[in-house]
Amino acid sequence: MQTWKSYLDSNQERFLAEFKAFLSIPSVSTLPENKGDVLNAAHWLASRMTDAGLEHAEICETGGHPVVYADWLHAEGAPTILLYGHYDVQPADPLELWQSPPFEPEVRGDRLYARGASDMKGNVLVFIHAVEAHLRTSGRLPLNVKLIVEGEEEIGSPSLPKWIEENQAKLACDYAASSDSAQISRDLPTVIVGTKGMCGLQVDIKTGGTDLHSGLAGGVVRNALHVLTDMISSMHDPDGRVTVAGFYDHVVDPSDAERQMARRIPVSGDVFRQAIGATELVHEPGWSVTECTWFRPTLEVNGMWGGFQGDGTKTVIPCEAHAKITCRLAANQDPDKIRELIRAHILAHTPSGVEASVTPLPGKADPYLMPETHPALSAADAALEKVKQAAPIHMRMGATVPVLGTFKNLLGVEMVSLGFSGLADGLHAPNESVDLGQFYAGGHIYCSFFEHLAK
Amino acid sequence: MQTWKSYLDSNQERFLAEFKAFLSIPSVSTLPENKGDVLNAAHWLASRMTDAGLEHAEICETGGHPVVYADWLHAEGAPTILLYGHYDVQPADPLELWQSPPFEPEVRGDRLYARGASDMKGNVLVFIHAVEAHLRTSGRLPLNVKLIVEGEEEIGSPSLPKWIEENQAKLACDYAASSDSAQISRDLPTVIVGTKGMCGLQVDIKTGGTDLHSGLAGGVVRNALHVLTDMISSMHDPDGRVTVAGFYDHVVDPSDAERQMARRIPVSGDVFRQAIGATELVHEPGWSVTECTWFRPTLEVNGMWGGFQGDGTKTVIPCEAHAKITCRLAANQDPDKIRELIRAHILAHTPSGVEASVTPLPGKADPYLMPETHPALSAADAALEKVKQAAPIHMRMGATVPVLGTFKNLLGVEMVSLGFSGLADGLHAPNESVDLGQFYAGGHIYCSFFEHLAK
Repeated sequence: MQTWKSYLDSNQERFLAEFKAFLSIPSVSTLPENKGDVLNAAHWLASRMTDAGLEHAEICETGGHPVVYADWLHAEGAPTILLYGHYDVQPADPLELWQSPPFEPEVRGDRLYARGASDMKGNVLVFIHAVEAHLRTSGRLPLNVKLIVEGEEEIGSPSLPKWIEENQAKLACDYAASSDSAQISRDLPTVIVGTKGMCGLQVDIKTGGTDLHSGLAGGVVRNALHVLTDMISSMHDPDGRVTVAGFYDHVVDPSDAERQMARRIPVSGDVFRQAIGATELVHEPGWSVTECTWFRPTLEVNGMWGGFQGDGTKTVIPCEAHAKITCRLAANQDPDKIRELIRAHILAHTPSGVEASVTPLPGKADPYLMPETHPALSAADAALEKVKQAAPIHMRMGATVPVLGTFKNLLGVEMVSLGFSGLADGLHAPNESVDLGQFYAGGHIYCSFFEHLAK
Repeated sequence: MQTWKSYLDSNQERFLAEFKAFLSIPSVSTLPENKGDVLNAAHWLASRMTDAGLEHAEICETGGHPVVYADWLHAEGAPTILLYGHYDVQPADPLELWQSPPFEPEVRGDRLYARGASDMKGNVLVFIHAVEAHLRTSGRLPLNVKLIVEGEEEIGSPSLPKWIEENQAKLACDYAASSDSAQISRDLPTVIVGTKGMCGLQVDIKTGGTDLHSGLAGGVVRNALHVLTDMISSMHDPDGRVTVAGFYDHVVDPSDAERQMARRIPVSGDVFRQAIGATELVHEPGWSVTECTWFRPTLEVNGMWGGFQGDGTKTVIPCEAHAKITCRLAANQDPDKIRELIRAHILAHTPSGVEASVTPLPGKADPYLMPETHPALSAADAALEKVKQAAPIHMRMGATVPVLGTFKNLLGVEMVSLGFSGLADGLHAPNESVDLGQFYAGGHIYCSFFEHLAK
């Protein structure tokens, strides 16, 4: 009897052909001229799901680009998993930097090059291959499966929360997984267990009604830029720790196991430094570069401006100054609370006679941390270890993935991030590619993941 | 026999008519369309000088707008004074804010309204009236007089230094005076004895090759705006003193007499605060508002920028940040030295791995302070006291008047600033006006000034 393993292995050629067909549809969600392509990709996907043996495939209107839904719910008594992905892609420009056209997929060596190859059309197909492999070889899945694949992730999923809220009953599940995720390397299997939250605000400083002549008023009025620089400077200590009172109060230190995992990351500081184009890495004493990125919250001024910015000299004392600040929040920090602490810091550092107004910036998100003992995490670990023959790393990261908070808040479900993109894939960049070995392995890992989760 | 006093008094009507004719010529030096008008004003002036009895009136080419020169050199054995003024004016816009057209002079109450009425066509005529009054009543002047009236002051006198350098012999003199100056009020006669110097620089901070994603690199790279705000914040102590090492080293404290004069300024802090549109006045402990403006050097950030300045949120760690800084320098400070001290401060506050480049800004000027015991100052004092019946104040100011340094450096002569503009005249603004009482008094003061200087 054929197993899902042999089924997956013997269908690689067909899977690659389909993958290329899916990648040929330029489903760029942000460009109005690609609206029809985005819809075509949704239809292609719904049809492919049905071919795989999934049922009730549906193009769900959201007000924006549609969500594609399908399910297979015949595993009586078994748990239900909700799988999440997105079929939209980033714009391809600058086109001149692509070695082969972004929507004409091309295999070079063991990699497939096309926009969306890694982020994340390949990782969406992985679900479908896993479902198909089980159904074609044993006639059933070890658990109930629901799939939702949205078309607006690359524009910030504006329609998704409302659609999930309106479809809570339809989406009810025991577990959830997203393959919009990454592996550290082929040999270092990875589950992303934590992402940072975010909050931000704009500070506007006003010291008077008009900019003043520095010969007339120099030395006797406040300069809005001096006030703002003092304020910004007061937000970090010389070692880079955030000095806003209460900022670290709810940050839970990582466990020894987590810190040990961080130490296993094989990327040296210098390689990382060069890769990101920084002249030097600096970080909080007591925490390594990886640990800072994974575990420590940050406060960054993203932009600042005031006064004269033209050529030459203008001897003006600016009466207005502005800064935009965002924080990346570690697990257990609350974006609203952090925003209030920063506001309080700003007001406490506003001298008399100065008006400081503080406006929230959009983009608020909760941090996310998968509970260490969650059965879905154990199942992902087991599947990775089985296929990759190595103990997986539980990785956190500095970036924000709002969809994790959305699922937790609206469906009450934890979400395993188990995907197969790699650091060298050039996501969002020209010549995006995917390691085909990782793409094929993905089907095996999800097949095994389903089995472990059903146990 | 008619005296210069009665001559000046009995010719007021004619002086007013001439003043209006001079003001009707729109000699706006910055506007190409007024180039002919500027030249017309120069010719009008040369002709008026000759009418007054001055000799050798000449339109001197400078490469830009011409200098008008004239002299009367028949006071053998007496000293020679060089009088300085300018006949160009600021643009008149915004026109809709003028109550009467800017180049159609109109008397309302005891004031004459027109562009240039106060800055400084009236103050140029004052010289001519004084010369004419002496010559018509006694047939001679008590001292030798040379007049130069330039046409480029309102655009920064770009041609003047070179022209003076090329005409040093022609301009040789014992004393110099400028009536491009002001009185505190009608009742508080004033000689401006000190003006501030200036220097400036731009700081450009670079922390890496590209802006970075705060989720990727947050907490482990330097943020150029954090570096710059720390740097700027380090330049003042909490009391507003400049902390750049050596900044105050060459500042000479004012004499008790000077501090007493500063205390006689009748403008209260609150009136000044409201007039300039500041919400609060703040100043160095131990120095009053007036004393800070007069005696204390300043360091101001005139503009600053970096990172994202658009609407909404961009979670970027900026790799570049920029600031423009200028200083107003007190007497005895050297602009080049101060610039070097600030550069050293910036470099000392540049963390490892960060590139700070420091570029001089144009507009360098020496501070100017008239020696307290200079005979020209005593003569100005005596003339003011005689006409105004009150002891004059020796005032310094926060603004920079480069022409004072130009005369001192190129002709080796100190310059008395004795002019009759007032704080309420709206210089450079719509509805510029002059107090006609001050205009008429100006002739008396210069007649007396000549006599005292000749003693």
